[in-house]
Amino acid sequence: MSENRKLVLIRHGESEWNKLNLFTGWTDVGLSETGRQEAAQAGKTLKEAGYDFDICYTSYLKRAIHTLNLTLEQMDREWLPVVKNWKLNERHYGALQGLNKSETAQKYGENQVKIWRRSFDIQPPALEESDERNPRGHAQYRKVDPRQLPLTESLKDTIARVIPYFEQEIRPRIEAGERVVIAAHGNSLRALVKYFENLSEEEIVGVNIPTAVPLVYEFAPDFTVVHKEYLGDPAVIAAKMQSVANQGKAGK
Amino acid sequence: MSENRKLVLIRHGESEWNKLNLFTGWTDVGLSETGRQEAAQAGKTLKEAGYDFDICYTSYLKRAIHTLNLTLEQMDREWLPVVKNWKLNERHYGALQGLNKSETAQKYGENQVKIWRRSFDIQPPALEESDERNPRGHAQYRKVDPRQLPLTESLKDTIARVIPYFEQEIRPRIEAGERVVIAAHGNSLRALVKYFENLSEEEIVGVNIPTAVPLVYEFAPDFTVVHKEYLGDPAVIAAKMQSVANQGKAGK
Repeated sequence: MSENRKLVLIRHGESEWNKLNLFTGWTDVGLSETGRQEAAQAGKTLKEAGYDFDICYTSYLKRAIHTLNLTLEQMDREWLPVVKNWKLNERHYGALQGLNKSETAQKYGENQVKIWRRSFDIQPPALEESDERNPRGHAQYRKVDPRQLPLTESLKDTIARVIPYFEQEIRPRIEAGERVVIAAHGNSLRALVKYFENLSEEEIVGVNIPTAVPLVYEFAPDFTVVHKEYLGDPAVIAAKMQSVANQGKAGK
Repeated sequence: MSENRKLVLIRHGESEWNKLNLFTGWTDVGLSETGRQEAAQAGKTLKEAGYDFDICYTSYLKRAIHTLNLTLEQMDREWLPVVKNWKLNERHYGALQGLNKSETAQKYGENQVKIWRRSFDIQPPALEESDERNPRGHAQYRKVDPRQLPLTESLKDTIARVIPYFEQEIRPRIEAGERVVIAAHGNSLRALVKYFENLSEEEIVGVNIPTAVPLVYEFAPDFTVVHKEYLGDPAVIAAKMQSVANQGKAGK
């Protein structure tokens, strides 16, 4: 095969908890009305740019699933196959999930919170086994080997589950010529960006992916990146990137 | 295995073309606002009755896909696997697709239209190969062997594609204990009802399945039906069945 391959990534739109400024992680919250509009706009942008897909991937979390559904609706592509897998979930934020920024700072100190957010391999405090937030007790994960399910994750841990899944399940399809879209989360997409671009640990922590803006990678046959672009209105994209960088919330 | 198995069927809610009184068939129209509400109510009903699923099936047509999505949303089950297959599509209504009741009666005569609607094995006029409604030219069916795609169908033809698909893909899962829901269409569901209940050709033509009311079949280990019930408010169900019977439109 000598042709280049393309892959489209979409980070979910604003969720109800983004609005409330809470650490979300694996908490399964829906999109806000703004998030729904962002997702629909992603679909319009892809359609106008002439994109089409053979298969779609998303996480087990409804903010990503709804983003994908709304994107496909605008593209008139509801009938495409969709594969959902928990390995594309957001980074698990441990005991911080459900806390807001000021609660967290009060409880753990501002500096510590900054470390959890910006470090590559430091985990937030783990959930207790008995915590109701423990995914091992959730219907959603009932078919997953409980030993695989995290009680907290660093970005490094997230990468360690995303990349093997991508390499086993998704990359072979792209290499076979299938047109793939992945609708997922800030940190599961960071894992892919680091992998595609061979970024260092320091570099990936500084990457902020704007919400619901289609990010297109073009790969040479050896899977090196030959082109990368965000689709849509450049002013809107720039504003979104700034907003995400200001927020600086890796767990959202 | 000695335990009984359950299966849930859901006919899609009101579509935009049901409202306009047009023959729909494979035309890919969305749900009306009423249809969206009906679908959400189906999800609420299933949740309240304690239903859960392992896998979901639907057609390639968005009125069924959206019905399923809205049902799953109410059940907090967006993460369930969904298999889409064109073999669960509505009966193909041939050259009648897109015509309204009075246009059809003018063009072909009232009596003839009644025959097409109510007969078991008489096909409406087929689409020409060059017709823009021919599914062989649609992106939706690009991965299907074109020789399998119909230009018109009788109810008998619809049954002939639905039942082998059910027997190969879905029945083994039910028999293995998986809890299955199928969101589909008046005639693809009639195919299943005829198969489950061993109805005659005359009997199945008289069966009218209400829209977006979960229909539960319980099977003995030998796959004979031991129980059948519609879930929800009996008055609402009765009104819906009457409305569908009055309409008498098999192609919707």
